[in-house]
Amino acid sequence: MRASRFPLATLKETPADAEVISHQLMLRAGMIRRLASGLYTWTPLGLRVLRRVETIVREEMDRAGALELLMPAIQPAELWQESGRWEQYGPELLRIRDRHDRDFCFGPTHEEVITDFVRREVKSYRQLPVNYYQIQTKFRDEIRPRFGVMRAREFLMKDAYSFHTDEDSLRETYDAMYEAYSRTFRRCGLDFRAVLADTGAIGGSASHEFHVLADSGEDAIAFSDAGEYAANVELAEAVAPQGGDVAPTEDLRVVDTPDARTIADLVSQFGVPVEKTVKTLVVAAADESGAPLIALLVRGDHELNAVKAEKLPQVANPLRMAGEEEIRAAIGAGPGSLGPVGLPIPCVVDRAVALMSDFTAGANIDGKHHFGINWNRDVPLPEVADIRNVTAGDPSPDGKGRLQIRRGIEVGHIFQLGRKYSEAMNTTVLDEQGRTLVVTMGCYGIGVSRVVAAAIEQNHDAQGIIWPDALAPFTVALCPINAAKSQRLREAADALYEQLLSRGIDVLYDDRGLRPGAMFADMELIGIPHRLVLGERGLDAGEIEYKGRRDEEATMVAMDGLEEFLRKKLQG
Amino acid sequence: MRASRFPLATLKETPADAEVISHQLMLRAGMIRRLASGLYTWTPLGLRVLRRVETIVREEMDRAGALELLMPAIQPAELWQESGRWEQYGPELLRIRDRHDRDFCFGPTHEEVITDFVRREVKSYRQLPVNYYQIQTKFRDEIRPRFGVMRAREFLMKDAYSFHTDEDSLRETYDAMYEAYSRTFRRCGLDFRAVLADTGAIGGSASHEFHVLADSGEDAIAFSDAGEYAANVELAEAVAPQGGDVAPTEDLRVVDTPDARTIADLVSQFGVPVEKTVKTLVVAAADESGAPLIALLVRGDHELNAVKAEKLPQVANPLRMAGEEEIRAAIGAGPGSLGPVGLPIPCVVDRAVALMSDFTAGANIDGKHHFGINWNRDVPLPEVADIRNVTAGDPSPDGKGRLQIRRGIEVGHIFQLGRKYSEAMNTTVLDEQGRTLVVTMGCYGIGVSRVVAAAIEQNHDAQGIIWPDALAPFTVALCPINAAKSQRLREAADALYEQLLSRGIDVLYDDRGLRPGAMFADMELIGIPHRLVLGERGLDAGEIEYKGRRDEEATMVAMDGLEEFLRKKLQG
Repeated sequence: MRASRFPLATLKETPADAEVISHQLMLRAGMIRRLASGLYTWTPLGLRVLRRVETIVREEMDRAGALELLMPAIQPAELWQESGRWEQYGPELLRIRDRHDRDFCFGPTHEEVITDFVRREVKSYRQLPVNYYQIQTKFRDEIRPRFGVMRAREFLMKDAYSFHTDEDSLRETYDAMYEAYSRTFRRCGLDFRAVLADTGAIGGSASHEFHVLADSGEDAIAFSDAGEYAANVELAEAVAPQGGDVAPTEDLRVVDTPDARTIADLVSQFGVPVEKTVKTLVVAAADESGAPLIALLVRGDHELNAVKAEKLPQVANPLRMAGEEEIRAAIGAGPGSLGPVGLPIPCVVDRAVALMSDFTAGANIDGKHHFGINWNRDVPLPEVADIRNVTAGDPSPDGKGRLQIRRGIEVGHIFQLGRKYSEAMNTTVLDEQGRTLVVTMGCYGIGVSRVVAAAIEQNHDAQGIIWPDALAPFTVALCPINAAKSQRLREAADALYEQLLSRGIDVLYDDRGLRPGAMFADMELIGIPHRLVLGERGLDAGEIEYKGRRDEEATMVAMDGLEEFLRKKLQG
Repeated sequence: MRASRFPLATLKETPADAEVISHQLMLRAGMIRRLASGLYTWTPLGLRVLRRVETIVREEMDRAGALELLMPAIQPAELWQESGRWEQYGPELLRIRDRHDRDFCFGPTHEEVITDFVRREVKSYRQLPVNYYQIQTKFRDEIRPRFGVMRAREFLMKDAYSFHTDEDSLRETYDAMYEAYSRTFRRCGLDFRAVLADTGAIGGSASHEFHVLADSGEDAIAFSDAGEYAANVELAEAVAPQGGDVAPTEDLRVVDTPDARTIADLVSQFGVPVEKTVKTLVVAAADESGAPLIALLVRGDHELNAVKAEKLPQVANPLRMAGEEEIRAAIGAGPGSLGPVGLPIPCVVDRAVALMSDFTAGANIDGKHHFGINWNRDVPLPEVADIRNVTAGDPSPDGKGRLQIRRGIEVGHIFQLGRKYSEAMNTTVLDEQGRTLVVTMGCYGIGVSRVVAAAIEQNHDAQGIIWPDALAPFTVALCPINAAKSQRLREAADALYEQLLSRGIDVLYDDRGLRPGAMFADMELIGIPHRLVLGERGLDAGEIEYKGRRDEEATMVAMDGLEEFLRKKLQG
């Protein structure tokens, strides 16, 4: 493509309202433009990248034997009423009324529509398994859309749904999709992890998320430094520390702590090691007819894991932290002075807390803490559960090595859904014996537009985006120096452009006549991975300058060896 | 593709609610399934065809220098308020309110969004001309969706918008798009015509429609049998017949016609030639403060052209036919007895009527007609205008040959839009002299999903669809006979399948083990253009049976010449 015929609309300034680097760079590179909150136009430059991702996703779905179809974006309310989600789904579901006052929604996902399709089309076990996918614009009416296309309202998604007679068949397709997702993100040139995930509101029995690793990621993921284990921190099991010394050595005593309202205060004011402190968090109980509140205890340096906590039968789901008023009414002290000894409400302690001795916690009296607490001697050990987030260095739950924590951006999610939708929507086939059988389902999503943003979060520097070759809008930038002044140089650049095109190389030929600095800045900002610079001197010497987007220095390459040189670069 | 891994869901019965052949065949072939009124799921089979059209459209847009981008489907009301269309556009605009009670619509077209994009991005004449396109799902809330994907509510469209500093530049791009559209439909293998069209509600100065010719088409198009002229009948100029004899030969007389309420009645009861009769149609006037009604006179065998009529300054736009009550109140007679002599309301006559002599029309008294009417002698000739549809045999307006009339399905429409949106939305650039200039626009649409239906309307027989090669979901059907009983045949068919695939031929290999009749019926219904049948006897003789979808008879082809044979068939 000649840059003179392709609108490049780079911006020097970082737009003020763009919080994350990918949003900033997509605006600055001219890949997207905002139409309204959470709604973006993909410019020709941006769309080229989006299509690269889409193509890789499509090829890998086809390779995995999934069949592409296309369902309507607009879905009738009746199907959502049948599955129960018309009521359950919150205001993120964009509800629409048509001219005949019938209710519809703009589909954020298509479980209902595909299940309805399959119950009409599939009658016999012989037609299963089947795995349908589509690549389609979805809408989720986020309350506060942000981070550009990372959390837009309208976005491009690949969603797939598989149907099976039994769990074995589901697992087989699930494994094939796991493999297809891994291939997809590998082909995109991304550093990613597949991690065990919570099945959450969608339900089902097993689930993996695919995360692009990036420091700016919203999710924390834990993985073993020695084994295969990887899980979202939401889900990762926190194994109890081994060999904790539980024998008491100190007496229980009450200490005045008038200025200690947090763990950090205790540590700094009293020299207590943080590993000898306990946080007491008060949440709503599941059954408020008994005690309305329940206390959850984690070590001072640990964090409560909300997903784990709300799975406890005693705890209200979704989790709700109690307010100060409620806490005072139930316990008689404020949130900064709570602890297990003399606590008048039920209590669950984390595995790590159960192994502590001689520890410090609030005395359930404002301004006072207990020091030297020991289980059983001072207070019976309450129920023990895994309710904290894992931390770096924790033993891996599979027994191999220790956990590391990295940040990730979720770009894919696969679920063994089970019979949630097929039961609600009475989706059956006849089995080999002619008996009616409710089918079992899997579902599989990739946030196609989000992959673009995630790739940038992982691959950028101060100059701009650094595209992996597979996602680059153009593979090679061809930059002639001062071509306006030299017909010879223009002709040589024109010829080289045609030559590279004819070799199937996707070249952006910067024939705009800009000064070298402005031209290079544009090509770096938009992230073209390979740059060729052609100047008079090189032309005299039969050489051209090459610089990879991550290279520190440029190299001179002989013109007659250029094709071979590039072939190697583009392979690797 | 192996048919055993690809769901074919053909139906023997014609679905009762499908009115047109394309809708029937798309359902029977299993290309689409209805989700709700005007909403269809494209099955894997149907989607393959849709993607073929999409790919050809994209390639031709790119070749024409248009730049693909992707705008949001959901558009903020503010832009439509700015252009004035939020109020003008009827209930076909699907209006949506988001969770924050802001107004949006599901875009049926994108003039506002692209104009807003361009006014932000384009500042200088140097950035023009530019031509943006997208291929996107649109929504039009049709009051009565029907004919399947031909008039669906949700549909796939290619829309393009070009921006220019002057009319010459607009015309240049318009011509390039005309050429690109012609190439697109030619590559799709369709028999089509580009015709002059009315610019209608969208406005603008010039417009062409692209019609796929099919007897079932909703539009009538007129084209010269000798020249280049082609126009939608809505627009085609009806030239006055040449050499009409206007000298009176009969006396004016009033005749009792108690049973003649229609032109057909007059012709059959009184032996009047239909060319000597006149229809008097009464419509609402533009300015109802004067006479509220106006009469329009066309020859008895001609039809009033509503588009032409509503362009008359005296006539209300949109056209509204007067009811019987109104007519009686104004004229004192019913609609079956009206005519120009003694008519108490204003009147416009068609060019052909102006040349008539000795003609018959109502006497403006119930049950009576005038015979032998002559202009000027009996009543002054009223205003003359072109207000009728052309008919087959009319002289072509360009003076070359006579008009033929064919039915067409509109699949594309190009407009020289002018400054309607750029003025309303203040879209300007600086010209060479640094002066502010309002840009001028073109817009260009192709109904991608409609092309699929139109192709079927044009190409089908009693057995089903007959795809042009370029649109076929699969190019070749490979049908082994009784393969279940012969391992040798299965192996030969498997090998041939792999061989054809490796040559880049898109084969549907029917390995489902059906009986030959059922297999052939499916392949014919879904319209695969080339069929290969492999049987034991052929295998012995080193031959295979070939039959083109339109062929009467099959031919035997030597296996070792098959590739060459197919190459020729697929080329042409």
